[in-house]
Amino acid sequence: MSAPTIETSTTTPATAGPREGAFGHAVALACRECGHRTELGPHYACPECFGPLEVAYEFPAVTREEIEAGPSNIWRYKALLPVPDDIEQSPNTEPGFTRLLPAKNLAAELGLDRLWVKDDSTNPTNSFKDRVVACALSAARELDAKVFACPSTGNLANAVAAAGARAGMKTVVFIPSNLEHAKQVNSAVYTDSLVAVDGNYDDVNKLASEIAGEEDGWAFVNVNVRPYYAEGSKTLGYEIAEQLGWRLPDQVVIPVASGSQLTKVDKAFQELITLGLVEDKPYRIYGAQAEGCSPVSAAYKAKVDAIRPVKPDTIAKSLAIGNPADGIYVLDICRRTGGAVEDVTDDQVREGILLLARTEGVFTETAGGTTVAVLRKLVETGQLDTSLETVVINTGMGLKTLDAVADRVGPAATIAPSYDAFTATGIA
Amino acid sequence: MSAPTIETSTTTPATAGPREGAFGHAVALACRECGHRTELGPHYACPECFGPLEVAYEFPAVTREEIEAGPSNIWRYKALLPVPDDIEQSPNTEPGFTRLLPAKNLAAELGLDRLWVKDDSTNPTNSFKDRVVACALSAARELDAKVFACPSTGNLANAVAAAGARAGMKTVVFIPSNLEHAKQVNSAVYTDSLVAVDGNYDDVNKLASEIAGEEDGWAFVNVNVRPYYAEGSKTLGYEIAEQLGWRLPDQVVIPVASGSQLTKVDKAFQELITLGLVEDKPYRIYGAQAEGCSPVSAAYKAKVDAIRPVKPDTIAKSLAIGNPADGIYVLDICRRTGGAVEDVTDDQVREGILLLARTEGVFTETAGGTTVAVLRKLVETGQLDTSLETVVINTGMGLKTLDAVADRVGPAATIAPSYDAFTATGIA
Repeated sequence: MSAPTIETSTTTPATAGPREGAFGHAVALACRECGHRTELGPHYACPECFGPLEVAYEFPAVTREEIEAGPSNIWRYKALLPVPDDIEQSPNTEPGFTRLLPAKNLAAELGLDRLWVKDDSTNPTNSFKDRVVACALSAARELDAKVFACPSTGNLANAVAAAGARAGMKTVVFIPSNLEHAKQVNSAVYTDSLVAVDGNYDDVNKLASEIAGEEDGWAFVNVNVRPYYAEGSKTLGYEIAEQLGWRLPDQVVIPVASGSQLTKVDKAFQELITLGLVEDKPYRIYGAQAEGCSPVSAAYKAKVDAIRPVKPDTIAKSLAIGNPADGIYVLDICRRTGGAVEDVTDDQVREGILLLARTEGVFTETAGGTTVAVLRKLVETGQLDTSLETVVINTGMGLKTLDAVADRVGPAATIAPSYDAFTATGIA
Repeated sequence: MSAPTIETSTTTPATAGPREGAFGHAVALACRECGHRTELGPHYACPECFGPLEVAYEFPAVTREEIEAGPSNIWRYKALLPVPDDIEQSPNTEPGFTRLLPAKNLAAELGLDRLWVKDDSTNPTNSFKDRVVACALSAARELDAKVFACPSTGNLANAVAAAGARAGMKTVVFIPSNLEHAKQVNSAVYTDSLVAVDGNYDDVNKLASEIAGEEDGWAFVNVNVRPYYAEGSKTLGYEIAEQLGWRLPDQVVIPVASGSQLTKVDKAFQELITLGLVEDKPYRIYGAQAEGCSPVSAAYKAKVDAIRPVKPDTIAKSLAIGNPADGIYVLDICRRTGGAVEDVTDDQVREGILLLARTEGVFTETAGGTTVAVLRKLVETGQLDTSLETVVINTGMGLKTLDAVADRVGPAATIAPSYDAFTATGIA
């Protein structure tokens, strides 16, 4: 959803250090650019080079059996996340372990041999954001934050407001004031502290970074606790592998907004290999963008390394990040694994939504429509091997972006309440 | 959602009988009134007395371990459902095994010692209907039906359209033509065969019964395969018991529309006791209705056995069945177990929605708001023992009935995008 401008890490120091084991087997925050290590805390930018920080671990031995004995949510992977061992005891929304659906109808439609839909629309607030927010909540708690917060226009706001309510934390969600009323309501039901900001999402985001820098004890999930938050997306990768019977798929198609999710699925696969939980094998990762906000796809096609920021103009608003923080890492992963980054038009996004609904009974939002449409385009352009096992990730649900398809579907017939009127339709 | 007028069981006979094991360990359809047994088939009314038919079983020995080794959906209980042993292999939406959330905040707010929310809003189409529809789909398939269908105004339509799409079956959903456009879209995304009927829900329902009687091979989930369909609700009871660590709760609060769900939770508890999967102990079952459609609550309060049909007038539309088919059984169960049936006003329903969202981060629809509000009223009126462990069931999700709370919540402040403007709000 949101890629904050990376700034110097001048945020709240914890008054006392976090408790022993507060971040599980995480040992440091490591810079993705220069490798410099910073101690675990509310930091997100490298003090040496201002590069983005990522959680580094020293994992213990972890077995499949230990994981399988865990709860039916992301905490079954707690040993691989920056969370304490007693994480299940703290009130949280219990996201994850969502369906991995065998998608035979969609596969047949697209000419694929074996296809799965990883369906994150059935998370507590109906998007994958519940995963990352659950990890951010744990960090906020362990860092003794007094306020749980985010800037957002949609899914993230829902997830933060819900998780904060359940945790009994003061929760403040910042949204652009011109956001549709229905979307405001979907967050406002959970919290009295929804703040509307007169400006666009970038303005809201900038304000959040400013507050994170000025105020003590604010945990902005996607700003100053972003390294912990982002780790939550690894669970999508873990679940795909476990639900396939502890093996990696050949190809995965993943939507790209900030790019974080795609990089974390790759990280998850690498960790599972390193830990001996799955066999080492090649896999290809593909990124999906909407044409109206496709800076990563554009760089991929132009065969360049730099991402040129764009001004988003697409119905896939949850993917509309014009300057994606992890875009360069997405490029690297998709190229290294033999995948690709592709984009589709808004009309193709709408078709993607209907295609998934009609073949597999999954009603996705515009981000999922984008991903399914890109899957189709990858097949049609020969960039994806149709004989290989493929997973497509659905990150959210269609009720949140109903307008995208509202004028495309409706009753086949309107009839009088009689059997004769019905038979006259020819539907019988 | 829907309680069809019970009619003579003149529906489609299967051309050949169903395959061996088509209905698992089910052995017959038994009349709930006179006990007469009918063979398994597309029948729903007793040929002797026109009473409602219910699935009867001869269960094998079933262990906790066998269930726990099953999938994270309702098919872990397949040995206790009228489905074949290979049910997981047939495309279905894989509903169930939803969260049982410890609800400490809500408990504290209401003055309860131990409270859980069984949250069915995270099912594939966001209501408990996915459970019953999955069982109906299996019956339709085993009975070789050519069309999968239902009359509905909401949740059931979504669930049937999605399950039918995924199963690759011809699916026809009948709705009143004056249904809000957004609700039509939410079903129409899945199917080309949405039929709008000029009339109210009763007219639509009557038309469905007529088609079921006239046409060969139509499986109307809540009409001619209703006995199989209804069994799906038992899984709510099984899951509550398993998720509590294989024991029954002391008190359960359940919404009442047709009343089927409440009776099936009781049936599930009884089966678990009989099978030795949980210890036999007393439990109380409470029914929740909205005042604008409270025929069962009215009968309970009047201490009578007969349900007097009403014309529904409430925002809790998914509970608005004026002549509930299982109302008399609800009365019997609530009285026998020492529970009660209670009702609340539409304003209390709205407060119930916000109460659950703000305490536990669960955004429910009006049916869930009704159930939470009834829970509160039962506490306030001393009908529920606050020292006993209680479970409240949330059957659906708030995005489907957003209007109910849309004018009650919103931003706490609207500000300019500056730190000074933010601090002036006093929220920091």
